[in-house]
Amino acid sequence: MASFYEKTVHTTPIFQGRIISLQVERVELPNGKTSTREVVKHPGAVAVMPFTNDGRMVVVRQFRKPLEKEIFEIPAGKLEKGEDPALCALRELEEETGYSAQNLQLVTSFYTSPGFADELLYIFEATDLKQGSVRPDADEFVETRLISLEEGLKLMETREIHDAKTVFALMYWQNKRLKARLGE
Amino acid sequence: MASFYEKTVHTTPIFQGRIISLQVERVELPNGKTSTREVVKHPGAVAVMPFTNDGRMVVVRQFRKPLEKEIFEIPAGKLEKGEDPALCALRELEEETGYSAQNLQLVTSFYTSPGFADELLYIFEATDLKQGSVRPDADEFVETRLISLEEGLKLMETREIHDAKTVFALMYWQNKRLKARLGE
Repeated sequence: MASFYEKTVHTTPIFQGRIISLQVERVELPNGKTSTREVVKHPGAVAVMPFTNDGRMVVVRQFRKPLEKEIFEIPAGKLEKGEDPALCALRELEEETGYSAQNLQLVTSFYTSPGFADELLYIFEATDLKQGSVRPDADEFVETRLISLEEGLKLMETREIHDAKTVFALMYWQNKRLKARLGE
Repeated sequence: MASFYEKTVHTTPIFQGRIISLQVERVELPNGKTSTREVVKHPGAVAVMPFTNDGRMVVVRQFRKPLEKEIFEIPAGKLEKGEDPALCALRELEEETGYSAQNLQLVTSFYTSPGFADELLYIFEATDLKQGSVRPDADEFVETRLISLEEGLKLMETREIHDAKTVFALMYWQNKRLKARLGE
């Protein structure tokens, strides 16, 4: 296979924020020419699909400033520096929903926007949930809801579920249901 | 339902690039306190799941600077200002893979990173493909590959498929297969 590697010849730091930073990289292309890449650096994040014993999933409703709207999402949060993704997942689940999980499995990971950001998202499945009390961050306002798969697919149609990780969660969930019906 | 709306009280523009821009917004929280939100503005994008008549999907291999690696992705590209997503999808498919599609359906749309970016991604399914010649952008280096669902799931395991839209495509495809086996 041909290599399409782009070597950075110069990095211009633009911004260092609370959550993200931004830099512009001048790169050497495979054909020897140069171009620029705008790169958002992100600490990475985790998301959890929490399934209750009665076959529902826990989602949280929150306002998202970049979207200027409220959406329902699976619980998620940024990784602290050096934090283990699984521990982060359990922490965020408890903080946002009050549920603790006795069982946690890594399902997959993916980059959310590989064209301009390095955010890597780890997705976990949590089961054997126990309900406790909610402890959101100081500037975080969330409301928990339990949904069935059918409710989830309807929320996706009305764009109240409208982000990559929660749409993934619904597809994953639907897959599991279909496989169970096929005895797999 | 309680409203968690965050009103912007001040916007600080930070950066205006070729593809993204960045601003920091001071917002009023539901409890009356203020906080800041780092918001990446993006023109939006389209992605296409191109299925061949022999049951394979067309993916492209390309180097992604933010990830510092090459991955296989479904064909995708940014929306031009005011561009119709469906026309953009057909254009990007042809430019990157050489395939034109006689049939194109919008499957869904989602925000890729609602915590810090407003990138909205439209996902299409393309069928009845016709092979033509590849015309990538001047600074775009891509290689086309046809994969089966099983090959796709293996590439996901080895993280050669490692981004939200292509992972979605595999889940969607698997769903379709399972439904077909159930006669749905």
